[in-house]
Amino acid sequence: MEYKSFLPPKRVLMGPGPSNIHPRVLEAQSRLTIGHLDPKFVELMDEIKALLQYAFQTDNEVTFPVSAPGSTGMETCLVNLIEPGEQVAVCVNGVFGGRMKSIIERCGGIPIVIEDEWGTAVTTSKVEQTLAQNPEVKILAFVHAETSTGARSDAKIISEIGKKYNCLIVADTVTSLGGSELKVDEWNLDAVYSGTQKCLSCPPGLSPVTFSKAAIDKIKNRKTPVQSWFMDVNLVLGYWGGGAKRSYHHTAPINSLYGLHEALILIKEEGIENSWNRHRLNGDLFCKAAETIGLNPYVKEEERLSQLIAISIPEGVDDAEVRSKLLSDYSLEIGAGLGSLAGKVWRIGLMGYSSNKSNIEFCISALRNVMSR
Amino acid sequence: MEYKSFLPPKRVLMGPGPSNIHPRVLEAQSRLTIGHLDPKFVELMDEIKALLQYAFQTDNEVTFPVSAPGSTGMETCLVNLIEPGEQVAVCVNGVFGGRMKSIIERCGGIPIVIEDEWGTAVTTSKVEQTLAQNPEVKILAFVHAETSTGARSDAKIISEIGKKYNCLIVADTVTSLGGSELKVDEWNLDAVYSGTQKCLSCPPGLSPVTFSKAAIDKIKNRKTPVQSWFMDVNLVLGYWGGGAKRSYHHTAPINSLYGLHEALILIKEEGIENSWNRHRLNGDLFCKAAETIGLNPYVKEEERLSQLIAISIPEGVDDAEVRSKLLSDYSLEIGAGLGSLAGKVWRIGLMGYSSNKSNIEFCISALRNVMSR
Repeated sequence: MEYKSFLPPKRVLMGPGPSNIHPRVLEAQSRLTIGHLDPKFVELMDEIKALLQYAFQTDNEVTFPVSAPGSTGMETCLVNLIEPGEQVAVCVNGVFGGRMKSIIERCGGIPIVIEDEWGTAVTTSKVEQTLAQNPEVKILAFVHAETSTGARSDAKIISEIGKKYNCLIVADTVTSLGGSELKVDEWNLDAVYSGTQKCLSCPPGLSPVTFSKAAIDKIKNRKTPVQSWFMDVNLVLGYWGGGAKRSYHHTAPINSLYGLHEALILIKEEGIENSWNRHRLNGDLFCKAAETIGLNPYVKEEERLSQLIAISIPEGVDDAEVRSKLLSDYSLEIGAGLGSLAGKVWRIGLMGYSSNKSNIEFCISALRNVMSR
Repeated sequence: MEYKSFLPPKRVLMGPGPSNIHPRVLEAQSRLTIGHLDPKFVELMDEIKALLQYAFQTDNEVTFPVSAPGSTGMETCLVNLIEPGEQVAVCVNGVFGGRMKSIIERCGGIPIVIEDEWGTAVTTSKVEQTLAQNPEVKILAFVHAETSTGARSDAKIISEIGKKYNCLIVADTVTSLGGSELKVDEWNLDAVYSGTQKCLSCPPGLSPVTFSKAAIDKIKNRKTPVQSWFMDVNLVLGYWGGGAKRSYHHTAPINSLYGLHEALILIKEEGIENSWNRHRLNGDLFCKAAETIGLNPYVKEEERLSQLIAISIPEGVDDAEVRSKLLSDYSLEIGAGLGSLAGKVWRIGLMGYSSNKSNIEFCISALRNVMSR
């Protein structure tokens, strides 16, 4: 068999991620590789940290990108904070809350599940009730923007309730960072993780995380070692922890970090609030346009994300056929439903560089054409 | 503070990795991102698998790149194979054997350490003796090419001994894949991991792994869940396991995989044996040239790697000053010694695209000039 260089088709990426990548980010990824201990690279690391602090709206000293995809950020936050036998309250209203629960169990934690229907936000009164009934719980985990359903939960209120019961707050912001209002410090979030392939317009592969001082205190005072060597924040900090002297932990993914740096500069240039607003306005526009062709959002307006919109698939429309035709005839990717929403919704991403008016027009007219055939 | 795009300096990378990246690989990384479930991407995944099988010289069905750096490949192999309470024999003759030991402990395993001096190969008679004395041991782990010292161990013989005692064999080939003779199937290695940033001429960030049928059988029949969600091969196989239907596990690092695909095509074009030979010949040339300026390899010839050569730092020469001048005056990176070899050796990498005659001449003359000042 002969192998040829892979020349990817040009896609319009309007699924749940990756979103389209800004050309400046793609170009940055192809710059010359240098060493992970090169003084010039250490300067870049400092800038990435400062830019991530800006994107997360935090002064947390411990803010860095985990060298692996978003789910590893989730595992990094949980595996460092949880010691075997600890009860952890976890809100499950979609795939990613469920994934948190699985990881909590693998860490030896005892998940106390706060369940909500898929496609709805976390019910804050249930959080209050659960924490009141389970005084041993000292960690509360939830998903800010459920990528599997398009529901946005009220991170500020959930965190307030958690703090009332002396919990450390773990928040999944994979799909919200850059796309929804997110204020890590003001909202008192303690361990927050995200991904690069959503509203940051960056290829997948890295997971920005940030830890509060309280979270780091808990990690530093663990009675048992962190079960993962790769994710052990105590070790990673020798490299990412700041200062002129960086000690080798693992070899950082140099070129991916070039891309992240460029993507974060783009966010800084736009302004984080402007980025939130752009996502909100384009999400509203998309929903209005969708209604004109008979498509309705699955999530009710006040709990709906703007950057990832679940659309109910109309009766009699073939889910897989529509998605497949969009891809083959329009080179347009939209997302399928996951889990209990499989076959019931499409997930339309308007994230990062993909969140623009021409994509909205294109997607709506392609959907109309494909469905009317 | 204002942030600018990062324009990395042009370095000659002759440290322990990353090595210089082939321009075709850098270019591939900047191609347009597509979705991780796109049919075109699934075709690419199949090609990456076939090309990795070629590089590893294996027919193992379970062969894929872990979406994180080499150390995560190490943790992936160990965390899947080891159940709590199991004894695991581990050869320690440098940093990476020691890292394996730490991960074995974090998995709840009981390491039985076979220790050798840093800068020497694993003593095979000690392996035999240890396995004979510890009949409960069913996993044997060792490092083929110790990146921290430049010593090459005899993977074929070590595996033969392990098999005599019914062990599964775990091999670290981070620095050997593509650079030293490595025959996964012929040598009966069961769980093998590597990295992209050494002899594959690819940026860091991915860890190719391959598992034998016996290893997969053990993983599928575990009594306890794999403690890591991200690294659980049972889950990852839903995505990488082949067939037309791929189910989402995590979002694959698309553009890094474009780079790996291109790098593996380069290996295929050169021929894996030719790649091994090139590394061997250039390693020999480097050692001969080094002797002419009074520099001697730290590892004896029959145990010496060709792609990563530890050079004894001559008496009275300032380690850090030489490395710093090489970087500032020649834009040349070489590696420092690690652990017990810190300050005693330099580590010179001649890996992948960096393994060529002009680099040898350049490095030798730069070293001569800097040391004679």
